[in-house]
Amino acid sequence: MLYKTASLFVIGTELTRGVIADKHCQVVSSQLTQLGYRVERMVIVPDDGTIDSALSACLDTCDVVILTGGLGPTSDDLTRSIVATLAKVPLVRDQSAFEALYARIGERIWGANEQQAMLPSGFESIANPHGTAAGFKGFIPVGERSVACVAMPGPPREMDPMFFDEVLPWLAQLIGHNDFSRTEYSTFLLAEAKLEELCRQVAPEGIQWGTRFQDLKISLYLVGDSEERRQEMAQSLRSLVGPALIVDGDVMPAALLTDLLRSKAQTISCAESCTSGYVAKLLTDEGGSSSWFWGGAATYSNDAKMKMLGVKERTLRTYGAVSGECASEMAEGILEVSGTDYALSITGIAGPAGGSAEKPVGMVWVGFAAKGRKTQTVKLQFTSWGRVSVRRKASVAALILAGKYINGDALLDTVRKWQYI
Amino acid sequence: MLYKTASLFVIGTELTRGVIADKHCQVVSSQLTQLGYRVERMVIVPDDGTIDSALSACLDTCDVVILTGGLGPTSDDLTRSIVATLAKVPLVRDQSAFEALYARIGERIWGANEQQAMLPSGFESIANPHGTAAGFKGFIPVGERSVACVAMPGPPREMDPMFFDEVLPWLAQLIGHNDFSRTEYSTFLLAEAKLEELCRQVAPEGIQWGTRFQDLKISLYLVGDSEERRQEMAQSLRSLVGPALIVDGDVMPAALLTDLLRSKAQTISCAESCTSGYVAKLLTDEGGSSSWFWGGAATYSNDAKMKMLGVKERTLRTYGAVSGECASEMAEGILEVSGTDYALSITGIAGPAGGSAEKPVGMVWVGFAAKGRKTQTVKLQFTSWGRVSVRRKASVAALILAGKYINGDALLDTVRKWQYI
Repeated sequence: MLYKTASLFVIGTELTRGVIADKHCQVVSSQLTQLGYRVERMVIVPDDGTIDSALSACLDTCDVVILTGGLGPTSDDLTRSIVATLAKVPLVRDQSAFEALYARIGERIWGANEQQAMLPSGFESIANPHGTAAGFKGFIPVGERSVACVAMPGPPREMDPMFFDEVLPWLAQLIGHNDFSRTEYSTFLLAEAKLEELCRQVAPEGIQWGTRFQDLKISLYLVGDSEERRQEMAQSLRSLVGPALIVDGDVMPAALLTDLLRSKAQTISCAESCTSGYVAKLLTDEGGSSSWFWGGAATYSNDAKMKMLGVKERTLRTYGAVSGECASEMAEGILEVSGTDYALSITGIAGPAGGSAEKPVGMVWVGFAAKGRKTQTVKLQFTSWGRVSVRRKASVAALILAGKYINGDALLDTVRKWQYI
Repeated sequence: MLYKTASLFVIGTELTRGVIADKHCQVVSSQLTQLGYRVERMVIVPDDGTIDSALSACLDTCDVVILTGGLGPTSDDLTRSIVATLAKVPLVRDQSAFEALYARIGERIWGANEQQAMLPSGFESIANPHGTAAGFKGFIPVGERSVACVAMPGPPREMDPMFFDEVLPWLAQLIGHNDFSRTEYSTFLLAEAKLEELCRQVAPEGIQWGTRFQDLKISLYLVGDSEERRQEMAQSLRSLVGPALIVDGDVMPAALLTDLLRSKAQTISCAESCTSGYVAKLLTDEGGSSSWFWGGAATYSNDAKMKMLGVKERTLRTYGAVSGECASEMAEGILEVSGTDYALSITGIAGPAGGSAEKPVGMVWVGFAAKGRKTQTVKLQFTSWGRVSVRRKASVAALILAGKYINGDALLDTVRKWQYI
């Protein structure tokens, strides 16, 4: 049988109530379109909804049905039951889903959670490394035909890797692509539209890409051709924007730094002016932060810079708070107070007010200090998209550059290519 | 007839091919939810698609059908024909749509454009000031029922004004709001499901509500009846959860505090352990923060608490870092260093590790100090939904309670009602 048409069902009451916006329709439809599928409909329904009729109606015209959501332990187990009903099979315990869930939550598996390991008989479970609900895939017989059906969890951070790693290769096979695999990258400080444009510029025939914005980073997925050729495309991108802004795999910007510190069993502290605690917060988002993070000073006022960090009044008067000199004294100040191995500092104009011709909104100085090592400062100029964006980008840039400083790289070389930030 | 359920059909091949992301689903569903509608499904289809069956199927269960797209002169005129067919009426020239179009494009109206002025007979045209395609609204008879149906152009800049100015008031009328007015509140620390449950409990007949989650707060919209009756409902809610957690208007939690400080021309500083800079960041999200915020210490480690805030080693040894004693010394410590009018402190167990029977994950102490005023500390126990949630709730609670402290309220009275956090 030829698989050519597809439908997507997105299940979530928070979507039909407009609490959150759907994140799956575009990702799924663009990838399927690239594979050659025709997407006939995408349907969003509440998780207490009557999806049955819509779903069974589309089995007559669609070759592939993709479902997301409705797999949680507290939901009405909508998805599993509906697929079982349509395929006319019972729900049975899937051993590998059960074991994965048990490894994750232990004895709490008994009760509501248990049903997360129950799958329609004959369907194959798909591991979910980021959550408790396994996905599953298989076929629903419809007369002479056999409709491919796959179900994935709703949260994007669980659905995305499952979709790209497991589901897309399967769908590629079904439509006749034999070799299908993809590589994931994390990109920082680049606007999504810019990343799109750069991909279009360097993508060789046979490689498709997809992007997903995630607050502090944009994920980039390269699909098709060989791993080697995908890496070549990533290298072409890196040659345009600098290697620091595109890293392999699924990595949050803070993890770039904290993984490095953990591996070296070293510590850091920070001194922040315009970001005022943002970096300190990011460095402690993960549990276990005390092994690498001592603490930080949110020195928003000049008085705080002087009192908490020992920044000299003369420095502030002569160069201003947004200057390499001030960034340098801030980093050295918190290093001295904390006794950590490294220290970073940020001082800049976040806006909307406070900019000038000489120091426009979006200008940020970052500084790095360590015992027995030369303090380094770097000036960055962000295209200003407002206060939120400048503070976010300044924090991400400081996290990236701190890792470079620790590794002994020359920071000016690193930022020289950052022409798109 | 009662109008209560709604479906949305979004027509556009560029959506099912993933070229662009849908922009209508969330806007429409959130507004309809606020009016009290239940959105039963949202369907995205290509503009050469077979929408007929999906649309006619939903006429049996839905009271309102909203369509966007498929009205352009180059499309297959999908929407107009489908609605005419379902309503069993011919397409006829609508005089006001024709005149508006003629005023816009003159003699070019003849040809393909002409059909843009053809509407299902008995339907009323809706002017489109931003484009050539008029919208239309009317009723489709289905047995004894009469389903409301409205069609709007696809581009957001044409659809949005039409939806908010013309369609929403009509839908409000249909669901029984004669006076379409609403009151907005901001709620803090309450889970959306809990807020929903409380509203259901106290809502008098004639008042509907809608909620929207926004990271640090949930907006609550009360719709229907009189302003006075809506305020009464808000008071009933406040009597259940405490007045501090439901405030009038669209207010971010940090603004509760910063507006107060600005009005008094006073300043604050903060000392944070488990939130590590989160509050310092929130207090500077807005421009002009330097008038109220001096700075803060993210004292994640005990060493940082001692060195930056002067917390006594004996206090940490005797009571631990998560204690009223430590919160008190942290607040007094930063007050002394900063010389601000007020200081707040936070220390708690954010998890996932570090909890114990005595001090479980989610236990947070907050402290408040001021010159010449008694330092106050309060213990909070958040239902733990993980590290992100505990840190967010601790920050929001500290911002709310700081305002109460400044106003001289007894903090224990304030938190006594916080049984749902």
